[in-house]
Amino acid sequence: MSVGLEQAGAALAAESARMAGLGWMRGTSGNLSVTLQREPLRLAVTASGLDKGELTGEDVVVVDSAGAAVPDQPDPGQRPSAEAGLHARIAAVAGAGAVVHVHMLSAVVAGQRWPGGVVLRDLEMLKGLGRRDDDVMTVPVVPNSQDMGVLGDAFEAGFDAATPAVIVARHGLYVWGRDLVQARHRTECLDWLFQFTLATNGFQEGVA
Amino acid sequence: MSVGLEQAGAALAAESARMAGLGWMRGTSGNLSVTLQREPLRLAVTASGLDKGELTGEDVVVVDSAGAAVPDQPDPGQRPSAEAGLHARIAAVAGAGAVVHVHMLSAVVAGQRWPGGVVLRDLEMLKGLGRRDDDVMTVPVVPNSQDMGVLGDAFEAGFDAATPAVIVARHGLYVWGRDLVQARHRTECLDWLFQFTLATNGFQEGVA
Amino acid sequence: MSVGLEQAGAALAAESARMAGLGWMRGTSGNLSVTLQREPLRLAVTASGLDKGELTGEDVVVVDSAGAAVPDQPDPGQRPSAEAGLHARIAAVAGAGAVVHVHMLSAVVAGQRWPGGVVLRDLEMLKGLGRRDDDVMTVPVVPNSQDMGVLGDAFEAGFDAATPAVIVARHGLYVWGRDLVQARHRTECLDWLFQFTLATNGFQEGVA
Amino acid sequence: MSVGLEQAGAALAAESARMAGLGWMRGTSGNLSVTLQREPLRLAVTASGLDKGELTGEDVVVVDSAGAAVPDQPDPGQRPSAEAGLHARIAAVAGAGAVVHVHMLSAVVAGQRWPGGVVLRDLEMLKGLGRRDDDVMTVPVVPNSQDMGVLGDAFEAGFDAATPAVIVARHGLYVWGRDLVQARHRTECLDWLFQFTLATNGFQEGVA
Repeated sequence: MSVGLEQAGAALAAESARMAGLGWMRGTSGNLSVTLQREPLRLAVTASGLDKGELTGEDVVVVDSAGAAVPDQPDPGQRPSAEAGLHARIAAVAGAGAVVHVHMLSAVVAGQRWPGGVVLRDLEMLKGLGRRDDDVMTVPVVPNSQDMGVLGDAFEAGFDAATPAVIVARHGLYVWGRDLVQARHRTECLDWLFQFTLATNGFQEGVA
Repeated sequence: MSVGLEQAGAALAAESARMAGLGWMRGTSGNLSVTLQREPLRLAVTASGLDKGELTGEDVVVVDSAGAAVPDQPDPGQRPSAEAGLHARIAAVAGAGAVVHVHMLSAVVAGQRWPGGVVLRDLEMLKGLGRRDDDVMTVPVVPNSQDMGVLGDAFEAGFDAATPAVIVARHGLYVWGRDLVQARHRTECLDWLFQFTLATNGFQEGVA
Repeated sequence: MSVGLEQAGAALAAESARMAGLGWMRGTSGNLSVTLQREPLRLAVTASGLDKGELTGEDVVVVDSAGAAVPDQPDPGQRPSAEAGLHARIAAVAGAGAVVHVHMLSAVVAGQRWPGGVVLRDLEMLKGLGRRDDDVMTVPVVPNSQDMGVLGDAFEAGFDAATPAVIVARHGLYVWGRDLVQARHRTECLDWLFQFTLATNGFQEGVA
Repeated sequence: MSVGLEQAGAALAAESARMAGLGWMRGTSGNLSVTLQREPLRLAVTASGLDKGELTGEDVVVVDSAGAAVPDQPDPGQRPSAEAGLHARIAAVAGAGAVVHVHMLSAVVAGQRWPGGVVLRDLEMLKGLGRRDDDVMTVPVVPNSQDMGVLGDAFEAGFDAATPAVIVARHGLYVWGRDLVQARHRTECLDWLFQFTLATNGFQEGVA
């Protein structure tokens, strides 16, 4: 697999603007990445500290498998978020072509409600995540950390190839896919699933 | 009745983009159709697996009364969703000129809350569905299935010509009308009605 | 006061599109009017049965003090909603230059919650309705009716010159002002006030 | 520091339109300011009584440290809101380069829920406000007043250089930063934090 950097930058900017418009990247939060090549691993990740609704195709940093900026950069003035380290870990472990990290309110609220994992079951929308409609999918919730090694270990310990997402408690959501469009679609489906699950929790108890 | 395919494709793409913008077609979910002709029945239905906010007028498949693609297609590379079978069944049974299938959160939450049918009563907005403001309209809720024959039988068993909608439990909503614009208007009114009914449930119990 | 019909039509179309975009005019619901002249009373009101997000400046009907279309019309094919009768009554009684009728969810939910009138008090946003921040404003709630005379009598019985709005139970909201822009601003402020009042109801009871 | 008035007016108009689109400036509510110079203090503040979604770069007033319009104005017909006095006080006390005042629903609801101050703790989004993710930040809530001296004294009494925001009870939110973009980002992060804190309140009590 080899994705061009210019194309990746343009796609990352467009996708970031879309997700910022959905309220998932408030402030300068969140970051998106595309895997450029595998041996050695290189990712194009959105630059840190910028409004994700206003990126250009140049607001991108190339990082290695540790999330560190490589020497040759399209814009040497840009720096990656520390979170690029978790993007690279996900790309390596899950074989993802794209990773989305957003501060989606429904995901963080669901992670707070069910800190042992958010159970999604028997919903047609699971098919948008590559599952059957009668599956049970548990989205893992890992504790927040500023140490990407700690976060990456927690992610990897709970990794299940059939569950392309992890919630970081009191922080946000990571979702991945073979490319940015698939990662977007999965992210949208998860928002729906979290909202449904939160909204219907308690119905079984027969509230009139 | 005979609707041109080119015109139908353009209308389906525009309507899909509108409904995707309202959050009703997350991921690649949902599909819309227009009845092209009746004898034999032919529907133009949005192609499967695409982002419904980005369709063009060519992203359409012509299906028969079983929802199967007919041999002569505008783009032979496109395939219909399995759900096209239910579109065709609705077009046949209800005489609909257009069918909307969306994953509307309020509809699925209401279907979960009232699995025996969602009762909408004494609301002016019922007039947007061809009813009187003092009517009682019960939107049927049928169990989800991957078998369109089973789903279609459940739909037909509960069919009432005065109720142009059915909720598929833990899945989504089907709405129909004489054309796409009427189906859109009915879909919008149902979203309002579901939201109102969910929001006001419990008020009668006198919560201060 | 004399407002030109062409100018009124353009303003009504633009304002309807804005309010449709806010979700206040689902389906073909709602209607807006501008007072064209007073002796005799003439209103330009949006035409019935159309999508309020897609009106042009010609989608307007001139009505008299009973809400009936006058003989000379810009487009004789258009007809007014029956609700034009209540617009005209409000224009006459309140001296309004513009009336907004929308199916605003927060208003109808608040009217259902407090059928004796929605009390708004001690909120800065009341200044957007011409009140002091420490005022108490009770928005009347009148029963729904298909008879505009009955609705108009109920409106007039509860009319208070300092309260430029009335909720029609299980139906929608009427708001008025000296012109469309003021009516828009008041409508926006009421939505905020209804949402705040619904969201904070129960806080006094000390829920932890 | 010296910011040009023309540039400030254009930035204020663009930022106001953005925030109006987010529903934070309903009616004609709210106002934004940029500090033009410090000795003596001069602020460019959005003009009063206008729709904040429709400002031009000329809809701006230059005020002094008391919030009063200075003699030489770009448009002598415009007047500042009384609230400009609080903008100036915040610019002086906090050394802010920009102040945002919006009627954000989540902030006013949170202020109503926790009138002694809204506690935000252990959330990654706190980093968007210059804090650590494991910090505790208490956003002060001051009583509403029409007297900007009283409001300013209450703000200053609770001022903490590490907390760039204050809620005015039953009214709105003030947020500040070194420039408009930073103030915008902080405002967005606060909305997320208030929504999260309101949505998850009560989870600890073990509701199933």
